[in-house]
Amino acid sequence: MTPDAFPGPLFTDLYELTMAAGYFQRQLQASATFSLFIRPHPKRGYFVSAGLEAVLDALDRFRFSTEEIDWLARTGRFKTDFLDYLAALTFTGNVMAMPEGEIFFPNEPLLEISAPLIEAQLLETYLINTMGVASMLATKAARCVYATAGRPIVDFSLRRTQGSHAGMVVARSSYIAGFNGTSNVLAGKQWDIPISGTMAHSFVTAFESEIDAFEAYADLFPESSIFLIDTYDTLQGARNAARVGRRMQAKGLALQGVRLDSGDMVDLSRRVRRILDEAGLPEVKIFASSGFDEYVLSHLIENGARIDAFGVGTRMGVSADAPYLDMVYKMVRLGNRDVRKQSEGKVTLAGEKQVFRRRSPDGRFRGDIIGLRDDVPPDGATAALLAPVMEKGRRLGALPPLSEIRDRFADRFARLDDQFKRLENPGEYPVAVSRRLAEIQKKC
Amino acid sequence: MTPDAFPGPLFTDLYELTMAAGYFQRQLQASATFSLFIRPHPKRGYFVSAGLEAVLDALDRFRFSTEEIDWLARTGRFKTDFLDYLAALTFTGNVMAMPEGEIFFPNEPLLEISAPLIEAQLLETYLINTMGVASMLATKAARCVYATAGRPIVDFSLRRTQGSHAGMVVARSSYIAGFNGTSNVLAGKQWDIPISGTMAHSFVTAFESEIDAFEAYADLFPESSIFLIDTYDTLQGARNAARVGRRMQAKGLALQGVRLDSGDMVDLSRRVRRILDEAGLPEVKIFASSGFDEYVLSHLIENGARIDAFGVGTRMGVSADAPYLDMVYKMVRLGNRDVRKQSEGKVTLAGEKQVFRRRSPDGRFRGDIIGLRDDVPPDGATAALLAPVMEKGRRLGALPPLSEIRDRFADRFARLDDQFKRLENPGEYPVAVSRRLAEIQKKC
Repeated sequence: MTPDAFPGPLFTDLYELTMAAGYFQRQLQASATFSLFIRPHPKRGYFVSAGLEAVLDALDRFRFSTEEIDWLARTGRFKTDFLDYLAALTFTGNVMAMPEGEIFFPNEPLLEISAPLIEAQLLETYLINTMGVASMLATKAARCVYATAGRPIVDFSLRRTQGSHAGMVVARSSYIAGFNGTSNVLAGKQWDIPISGTMAHSFVTAFESEIDAFEAYADLFPESSIFLIDTYDTLQGARNAARVGRRMQAKGLALQGVRLDSGDMVDLSRRVRRILDEAGLPEVKIFASSGFDEYVLSHLIENGARIDAFGVGTRMGVSADAPYLDMVYKMVRLGNRDVRKQSEGKVTLAGEKQVFRRRSPDGRFRGDIIGLRDDVPPDGATAALLAPVMEKGRRLGALPPLSEIRDRFADRFARLDDQFKRLENPGEYPVAVSRRLAEIQKKC
Repeated sequence: MTPDAFPGPLFTDLYELTMAAGYFQRQLQASATFSLFIRPHPKRGYFVSAGLEAVLDALDRFRFSTEEIDWLARTGRFKTDFLDYLAALTFTGNVMAMPEGEIFFPNEPLLEISAPLIEAQLLETYLINTMGVASMLATKAARCVYATAGRPIVDFSLRRTQGSHAGMVVARSSYIAGFNGTSNVLAGKQWDIPISGTMAHSFVTAFESEIDAFEAYADLFPESSIFLIDTYDTLQGARNAARVGRRMQAKGLALQGVRLDSGDMVDLSRRVRRILDEAGLPEVKIFASSGFDEYVLSHLIENGARIDAFGVGTRMGVSADAPYLDMVYKMVRLGNRDVRKQSEGKVTLAGEKQVFRRRSPDGRFRGDIIGLRDDVPPDGATAALLAPVMEKGRRLGALPPLSEIRDRFADRFARLDDQFKRLENPGEYPVAVSRRLAEIQKKC
């Protein structure tokens, strides 16, 4: 079991259980539909869908163990008939969802669950937690990929993510968004994501000299050596790396690269490039890592840093400029009536929905329409983004491999205009509401 | 297994394994000491130690499974003799640590591990990840508790934490820091933390009317009802709650409270208080939740909000104003030499250390001295904060119960001057370096 596995149905806010007890007591067992969506966020022009695989796995396994039921009984909060009901509960509902790797926008449902009220309600906390962190990190990572303007980029965030689950999710979500690999070995094993990494400062300090450390590493990994050159002095480190690189060259081997991890990256990368070139090592690449995020990456590239590939850590791994999304899961239909919360400033669209996307003749995204699920697709809508993925608690078809999800994102991202990808003050992508969906809102 | 459990030794950055292979190849198996500490953070005047219990559990279980070794072999990166070594590896080192619930400051070691170089190195990623998130969230929670000026406060953050592990950690860390409970049921089960929660908007909308929803809830939970009153209109919700509250009163029962979740909290809480008081329900409490953090809490209290208890969610649960700590794990001794990284702007104190804390005669904290582990305690130092918790891979004594950790924090926090607790621009707590420790730095 890895940190991304479903932690079981007690991973929930208590009120989901007390509400369920209330519904049970009053025999409120009509089918309900809940919609999962994100409220507008000033710092994000688009979002990337991720987390569905984990959610479907959780729905498959949604079951209270005897031990969990016994513990709930001991809390003294719940009646026996309700606990008996929970003990037999499995997920029997239907799920409509956007595929992972899809691009979406605020207020568009990412997922709609239709199930007996209690089943649908009990999933709330887990769904928001899981889809929220996965989509937030895929979105942050997509911004970083965009900022590198095509250069390779690797996830180095594992040590600073907010816990182990986030550490797994960021490796997967960033790979979906176009990262080339991760330092996270367990994620490499779990999802076959390329793993990356060579040495830290402690390795260099463990040897008598920097040169000794580089030589020891090159002996062991002659085909995949990247030397960290800033432990003592970056320029001297570059000269030491060049010496070892030339010795490798003489043996018919090739040093892969050097890594910078501190200092003025624009200036240092140029000087290090010169040292390597003058040593006859123009093919040795310069990697860099050091508090990067999309803003720093974009700055480095605009200012002509001679960096060939980036390691991106903490600020990407916690989405530091926007460390949470306002993702919510709201009831939109109960039995045969459409419902919505009407509190000030927080509007929910009632009704079971579909998202239609218009494309121009050359395939670029022109705008979305949030409609009713049974709306006739509007003119020019070439895609309905939500598709059934589970019916009566059973999955419909196999999940796509991660490579396919990554390809989907690359395809979609290429169709999105640059104005929506801007790192600051992105344009607002047009999202309209269909006439029939708008009419429903007046009635409830 | 819960989300806070050790994910195994592959939960690591790849470079820990490649460095270990390098040490193994060169027979670098001297004992090393690594120090875990936090670099200065502009938004935090103090930090709260948390996460040690999970770390010691991980050290107990640190072992590669056959399946993990086989997978590493299939990556083609490692030689057989190294993999055989890993297959037999367990943690055999010594650990000095601050107890959980202790207050600490930048550059002070929270933990020092002395072990054969490879063992100590392989722990880096997991240690920083686990102690980092636990201490970050305990620190954030302590600020929130301080801001409530003694009013009860509950963790409602589970749905918005960065993944499931963080969701568990925030419940535990915030309880250590003085929270009164959590909405997280699994954390309640795991650590016996009081659980809290009643209803969401979806519960209210599931009934024909708000009054029906309140009555259904009161029937089922006559002794622990808190009605959410902002689904339609907060003041009308308060009047509806008062009607049901009076009916409960007539039956000899007592409505516990109402909850506000949107709108102008200062104004609404006063109006709702008046409605409840005029209905003869002065004992019914007002709970509130709505995007709170220490800054909002402090504002509400300064402006005379009539709120009796707070539910704090997202912004606390992700430490939104400071979503990561610059926690590092650095080699400070190898064999018989003290070592340190010397890169620009990032200084590490070489040598095996102890933190001495001075107290005034009335028990208040006067300042810390970071010294060598075998320093004679400086004048006035009444406590050495690091104590041995593991020797030769075996635990020394049982871990304290969570209640004891919580009491420790309360004791320590009471001894810290208010200037260091200020939410903005906190004073800088005096931390000095002992003469002997300073001398060591010149030599390496």
